[in-house]
Amino acid sequence: MVDKAPTVVSNAIRFLSADAVQNAKSGHPGMPMGMAEMGVALWKNHLKHNPKNPKWDNRDRFVLSNGHGSMLIYSLLHFSGYDVSMEDIKDFRQLHSKTPGHPEYGVTPGIETTTGPLGQGIANAVGMAIAEKVLAADYNRPGYDIVDHYTYVFMGDGCMMEGVSHEACSLAGTLALNKLIVLYDDNGISIDGDVKGWFTDDTPMRFEAYGWNVIRSIDGHDIEAVEAAVAEAKKQNDKPTLICCKTTIGKGAPTVGGTAACHGNLLGDAEIAKARELMGWSYPAFDIPQQVYDEMSAVEAGAAAEAAWSERFAAYEKAFPKEAACYKRRMSGELPADFAEKMTAFIAETAKAQQEMPVRMASHKAITMIAKELPELIGASADLAASCLSYWEDSKPVTAKDGGNFIYAGIREFGMGAIMNGIALHGGLIPFGGGYVTFSDYQRNAIRMGALMKQRVIYALSHDSIAVGEDGPTHQPIEQLGSLRMIPNLDVWRPCDATEAAVAWECAIAHEETPTLMSLSRQICPAFKRSDTQVEAIKRGGYVISEAKGELKAVIIATGGEMDIALKGQALLEAEGIGARVVSMPSTFLFDKQDKAYKADILPAGIPRVSVEAAHTDYWRKYVGLEGACVGLDSFGESAPPAVLYDYFNITDKAVAKAVKSVL
Amino acid sequence: MVDKAPTVVSNAIRFLSADAVQNAKSGHPGMPMGMAEMGVALWKNHLKHNPKNPKWDNRDRFVLSNGHGSMLIYSLLHFSGYDVSMEDIKDFRQLHSKTPGHPEYGVTPGIETTTGPLGQGIANAVGMAIAEKVLAADYNRPGYDIVDHYTYVFMGDGCMMEGVSHEACSLAGTLALNKLIVLYDDNGISIDGDVKGWFTDDTPMRFEAYGWNVIRSIDGHDIEAVEAAVAEAKKQNDKPTLICCKTTIGKGAPTVGGTAACHGNLLGDAEIAKARELMGWSYPAFDIPQQVYDEMSAVEAGAAAEAAWSERFAAYEKAFPKEAACYKRRMSGELPADFAEKMTAFIAETAKAQQEMPVRMASHKAITMIAKELPELIGASADLAASCLSYWEDSKPVTAKDGGNFIYAGIREFGMGAIMNGIALHGGLIPFGGGYVTFSDYQRNAIRMGALMKQRVIYALSHDSIAVGEDGPTHQPIEQLGSLRMIPNLDVWRPCDATEAAVAWECAIAHEETPTLMSLSRQICPAFKRSDTQVEAIKRGGYVISEAKGELKAVIIATGGEMDIALKGQALLEAEGIGARVVSMPSTFLFDKQDKAYKADILPAGIPRVSVEAAHTDYWRKYVGLEGACVGLDSFGESAPPAVLYDYFNITDKAVAKAVKSVL
Repeated sequence: MVDKAPTVVSNAIRFLSADAVQNAKSGHPGMPMGMAEMGVALWKNHLKHNPKNPKWDNRDRFVLSNGHGSMLIYSLLHFSGYDVSMEDIKDFRQLHSKTPGHPEYGVTPGIETTTGPLGQGIANAVGMAIAEKVLAADYNRPGYDIVDHYTYVFMGDGCMMEGVSHEACSLAGTLALNKLIVLYDDNGISIDGDVKGWFTDDTPMRFEAYGWNVIRSIDGHDIEAVEAAVAEAKKQNDKPTLICCKTTIGKGAPTVGGTAACHGNLLGDAEIAKARELMGWSYPAFDIPQQVYDEMSAVEAGAAAEAAWSERFAAYEKAFPKEAACYKRRMSGELPADFAEKMTAFIAETAKAQQEMPVRMASHKAITMIAKELPELIGASADLAASCLSYWEDSKPVTAKDGGNFIYAGIREFGMGAIMNGIALHGGLIPFGGGYVTFSDYQRNAIRMGALMKQRVIYALSHDSIAVGEDGPTHQPIEQLGSLRMIPNLDVWRPCDATEAAVAWECAIAHEETPTLMSLSRQICPAFKRSDTQVEAIKRGGYVISEAKGELKAVIIATGGEMDIALKGQALLEAEGIGARVVSMPSTFLFDKQDKAYKADILPAGIPRVSVEAAHTDYWRKYVGLEGACVGLDSFGESAPPAVLYDYFNITDKAVAKAVKSVL
Repeated sequence: MVDKAPTVVSNAIRFLSADAVQNAKSGHPGMPMGMAEMGVALWKNHLKHNPKNPKWDNRDRFVLSNGHGSMLIYSLLHFSGYDVSMEDIKDFRQLHSKTPGHPEYGVTPGIETTTGPLGQGIANAVGMAIAEKVLAADYNRPGYDIVDHYTYVFMGDGCMMEGVSHEACSLAGTLALNKLIVLYDDNGISIDGDVKGWFTDDTPMRFEAYGWNVIRSIDGHDIEAVEAAVAEAKKQNDKPTLICCKTTIGKGAPTVGGTAACHGNLLGDAEIAKARELMGWSYPAFDIPQQVYDEMSAVEAGAAAEAAWSERFAAYEKAFPKEAACYKRRMSGELPADFAEKMTAFIAETAKAQQEMPVRMASHKAITMIAKELPELIGASADLAASCLSYWEDSKPVTAKDGGNFIYAGIREFGMGAIMNGIALHGGLIPFGGGYVTFSDYQRNAIRMGALMKQRVIYALSHDSIAVGEDGPTHQPIEQLGSLRMIPNLDVWRPCDATEAAVAWECAIAHEETPTLMSLSRQICPAFKRSDTQVEAIKRGGYVISEAKGELKAVIIATGGEMDIALKGQALLEAEGIGARVVSMPSTFLFDKQDKAYKADILPAGIPRVSVEAAHTDYWRKYVGLEGACVGLDSFGESAPPAVLYDYFNITDKAVAKAVKSVL
């Protein structure tokens, strides 16, 4: 392996990165310096993208999974012609700059996903490659490859160690994602030092075990070698490719290069000065020779690539006008014009039908209806398709050989979540995934990332309380509901019946910038009667489902599987002449967004409140205050039949009535 | 591969499991039936355990990582002589029975860890094997192998797919845990059906890539073959072993055997009857021939094994009395007699020293002190040893070749958490682990499992707010604090300075049945002045750190890095003649456990309250109610210098003063 000399262009990346980090007095100089040649190799000869139209549909996707090396991609974006100026670079890691500490989707043109939490970038990329495969199967026709792009990833040791990389890469092998090309920045260094003390995997062998094509022992500082390896990878027909690039972290830094000292620490002016000398780089900080811009500009090539595609698409549009229109609509993220109306009709029918059923089944019915209208709906399940009723009649599994609209994700909750984020980010698809509420714990940071990136990702999770019963405390969510509700920009729904489940799905599809997590009952729930006005009010997140008879003395706030108990408690109180209103609060997220008047109308000031939910009660203090009461449980569950547990944990109609009386 | 005929003993497991599941009308019959021969093979000839003294120190550990097959282990415990009666078996999955839905630690004798959440059992087992290795290095002397046992695991496809298995098994290879022997129940079926659609890993190759010894292609229904493979595995000196056992799920069930239909569904009386016929099993349900008890009883052999060890230990005790005493103390879980006193002195010194420092540094100082007194303290870090200051001067990394007291866990938060649980469960060690608060998301279910199992596991996590600054929203915890506080039996601390950090450590060590999670500041925090009474009050979780001057008009409740802001806010109010008390609330968990009088004393009824914490405010409604106010943030953070962010998010002394005035 000959260590090729860095070029003017790669040194420009190297020093712009080092100087920007130094300027910000914060950041990670080592990775961008170590990956500079890899960046040039991919960016110059392979990446198909248009800096002047960064969101062009058929661009290649690039994911910097080791997001702490953010200056690498900012440099590349800057040099190649994106709207990332030198001023932006100087503003590295400052408030509301285009160059935040880690690459953030929606902040910087050309950033395809937010990375930083390790392992999730590669999983996002697997999602993007699945999306490409699925859309290609949906829309390409012989002679018309209108969906045809690669997904490239840079990832480091950290991503390799994280379990989510196992989950996502294993599935990528099974699904034969040949257009996924990963460049592994094998620098052998993590924050604690030489990784040999904690990371001795034979990574190429590991990926071969996943069914990947592995290209070993590439000198990551040899631009030509990296370019050739990527060219080789592109020949693959049925395997994703891992290109193992041996690099030196902080390459060029004479003292700290190759060590953990340049991982998250500033190099300091002296070290950078010495590096300049050593690497023969005479330009001052933030002074980049024109040659770099000339060599790296992707503006012309990008415009040409897009133009060629547009021409191809125009021909396709002539030959397949219906498909082309559908594709364009989907990629734009817009719903069919008549969808809202059909959804409203479905909700009305559901409300009218008054069928009792498990809420997971109600969700299934909504999925079935939506899938008929929205070819962009793509399901997934963490090995619980049957249990969570995630598949539907016309669902077709995505396989190694073909696209489809359902991903058997295996027992990989976290991977599934991060893959769904990637699918949503790609565009053209609305992903939803099934699993159990308790195991949202496993995928929690992926849920958070979807919320942070404002992606329309839907979790339809079942088995949402002690009503799980015999499976016991490991499978019974307690703190999950309240704690999920605290994730900013996540709409958590706990529908109490089929009608609320239908509205939950309506909102989940309608709200483009908010992921939704539905907490669905495993057990049968009654169908509750509602007026049209009440049905209409569901989407406000909280509404009066049953008004107090006589003078209003208390408000009972309930959700999901405990609605029945709340209403029976109300009846007990009524028999004693105590008027209590029952408020259904399936989405605290949407209720909180209502205006003051509405909220005061539902929860009148001065009237005591009692919450009813078979979950941790702390969250409900937000609504019932210190003076109110909570019916719920703050301990772990137990293994026993559901009815036994409701009695044991004192979540009953009598307990509701007693709690109300205690706060009067 | 010849499929050997099941034996009377393995059929006894098979049918006892099927019948118990049928009787409970809930459970998973397939796995125990499929693993029956594996169970016999391990249990009869290899497992060193004493049913009459299930907690004997030097027993082999057995972990059923695929915990949904719980009837397998209940059968084995019952047959081999543990205090698990036939009545207990009939009580399968009933409230407070010894046979809950999934194996639960602390409920059933012989259950070493609670399993069910897939992938964590194998990771617990890696922790147990690390514990054995570390203790052996600490205490064994030439000729005196007093710590010398194996850790056996059964795991299925589900565990294999979960990312945490990657994290734990990769580390197990690096650390050369040769006494870890894993039997992989390769039945090719998961809930969604034949795993080929979503799981095509070459698992043996994957484990070889981790540096494991892999024994391939064992017929899991051939007791002799499995026995021989385990015997072979025991010869390993420097590698953990994976034994790949090909099995048929639900073996013996004529219609559904070998399919997902027997995974989580009852077989039904007819299918069980047919199975009995097919397998030549004429005994009625719950009627087990004496032969089975005779063959499977481990009572005599177990007593002999323990007696032999006791004899060995007695000799060791004579030769190495100090070591033996220390070992016994550690395994009993007791602290040295003088520890409490030394800890008190350390806290007093810290309080007196009045040194400002990052709270992570304060935690580091406490670790350094404790490690001197407690050889059982073992640290770990998810590649952030330097950043979280998790190592200490005398820490010694655990390596492939030797024991130690610090685990470089790599970038494997979830694996680290589950490994720590396993270490604590093993006994003789008190594990703590470092990482970032935000990435507690990754390890959340392991934290939960530690709380459920009542294990003394300590998370000392740093970078606990927007004060992380430039790293941005992906690295800034918002909802984590409140949501971690909702995990039952988890003591979450957010100390505001070195003195509170010292008390947090005191409590973490003292509370044997409660895991502790510390949320530590990256940034420097002042040292706050306290009287001795105040210092003493810290362990109550909440106390008055600064009394109001003049009439008490409001209570400000603050934690951690925002204490300074709260106190400055108090001063601003004072200048306006408004008396506000500042309550430091480092542990809501402990504060909630105080008696009513104490709580009313600290937070007097009728006095309005304002919380101050740079985190999600929803949680604080529990203390400030509807009428109070919260200074905090309910959105994601931003990438910018910390001071800029505090201003931007309006978490300032002025904001505190304003909030107080708004609630007067």
